[in-house]
Amino acid sequence: MDTTKLFQHGTLALLVPGLLTGTLTMKELLQHGDTGIGTGEGLDGELIILDGQPYQINSRGEVKVVGDDFTLPFANSHFADYQPLMTVENASKTAFNQQILALSKLDNAFFSVKATGTFTNVKTRAVAKSSQPYQSLAETAKNQSVFTRDSVQGTLIGYYSPQLFDGIAVGGFHHHFLTDDRSFGGHLLDFETVTGEVSVQPFSTLEQHLPIDDPDYRAHDFAEDNIKEDVHQAEG
Amino acid sequence: MDTTKLFQHGTLALLVPGLLTGTLTMKELLQHGDTGIGTGEGLDGELIILDGQPYQINSRGEVKVVGDDFTLPFANSHFADYQPLMTVENASKTAFNQQILALSKLDNAFFSVKATGTFTNVKTRAVAKSSQPYQSLAETAKNQSVFTRDSVQGTLIGYYSPQLFDGIAVGGFHHHFLTDDRSFGGHLLDFETVTGEVSVQPFSTLEQHLPIDDPDYRAHDFAEDNIKEDVHQAEG
Repeated sequence: MDTTKLFQHGTLALLVPGLLTGTLTMKELLQHGDTGIGTGEGLDGELIILDGQPYQINSRGEVKVVGDDFTLPFANSHFADYQPLMTVENASKTAFNQQILALSKLDNAFFSVKATGTFTNVKTRAVAKSSQPYQSLAETAKNQSVFTRDSVQGTLIGYYSPQLFDGIAVGGFHHHFLTDDRSFGGHLLDFETVTGEVSVQPFSTLEQHLPIDDPDYRAHDFAEDNIKEDVHQAEG
Repeated sequence: MDTTKLFQHGTLALLVPGLLTGTLTMKELLQHGDTGIGTGEGLDGELIILDGQPYQINSRGEVKVVGDDFTLPFANSHFADYQPLMTVENASKTAFNQQILALSKLDNAFFSVKATGTFTNVKTRAVAKSSQPYQSLAETAKNQSVFTRDSVQGTLIGYYSPQLFDGIAVGGFHHHFLTDDRSFGGHLLDFETVTGEVSVQPFSTLEQHLPIDDPDYRAHDFAEDNIKEDVHQAEG
């Protein structure tokens, strides 16, 4: 169990043209970590893995645990070994992200952040599953559902990727969220304040796994895609 | 021994502003493979690893085996498991690269290529070691030596990286070379023809290791660097 490695299946870039086939099973993803985030085949909801349990938040806002056979086009996982970084009180999302970088000085590293506590005016989204032929990320993102809660207790699991790797991963922060009662979550679009404990886990290695046996991935010409713009429009 | 993984220490981007401290030892690099390429601290020559032996070609054109303590800012290694792809006869460098992609259809994968045989009008280069404070890649590359041979027997070890990863690695092909008699080699700039056997080894995983404990790497702001242009000027 190597806690210095971040596993990534797929790259963010392959979502842009709609290469959304599930090319890794949840069973395989969990072999690389007990903590993580991802999305299902066809952008089937938002995934968050906590203590080895993979929760899916679908486009109706329902939270359920998915099975070993659930497949994913894009996901991250790692074995948790978080170190306490700071306690925050009524920190805005901007202040939260800025303080993490200011204190950890991990701008050029991959790292994970975990925050537990009370979040106010939380806004999450979950994308609706599409079927083949898959549409582009820009098209699919139009079918996302947005959910809000005034005040919830929960856990944020995020990954930070150096800007050098933008397009491979989400350059900067990428947060998913789940409440303590497992009733609400998704890709974290925004929150007004967070009060709680923040810990981080730096990685010296990104284990970048690509779906090289998938015929659609192999045959695709990425030169035509507007990768960075489409990604930041959709993941913002 | 996992032959589906390509190990990379550092990223190409960190050479651009002159982050040239040796942050991995040869001993560590060889734990990830018996085959590879790289450069030494301060861009100290060109490295090629064949059958577990790490050869350095320095800026005087000398070839020597380096020791376990030799340090590198940027390198690749993997455990060789090449599969025959084609036999070539008087193939130009352009035809060689094109035929490899046409036959293997590995445009979107990381893979290694090994070619053994006769190469004509071979042109290699080796950069001269610089000391701290290190200069930028553009400055250092001005101090490269270029060597030529009319006709030699040797081995080409190359890596191909998908264009998506350009800046992280060299997008496209990156070849190093060493003659059978170990008297000539370096970063392969050009050749007129190759006649011999070509084999490839695809990787499903890039194990991207970053020098996250190096203070210069951690503190550097890559946003100011002209990464892709400088890299392709220097690595062309």
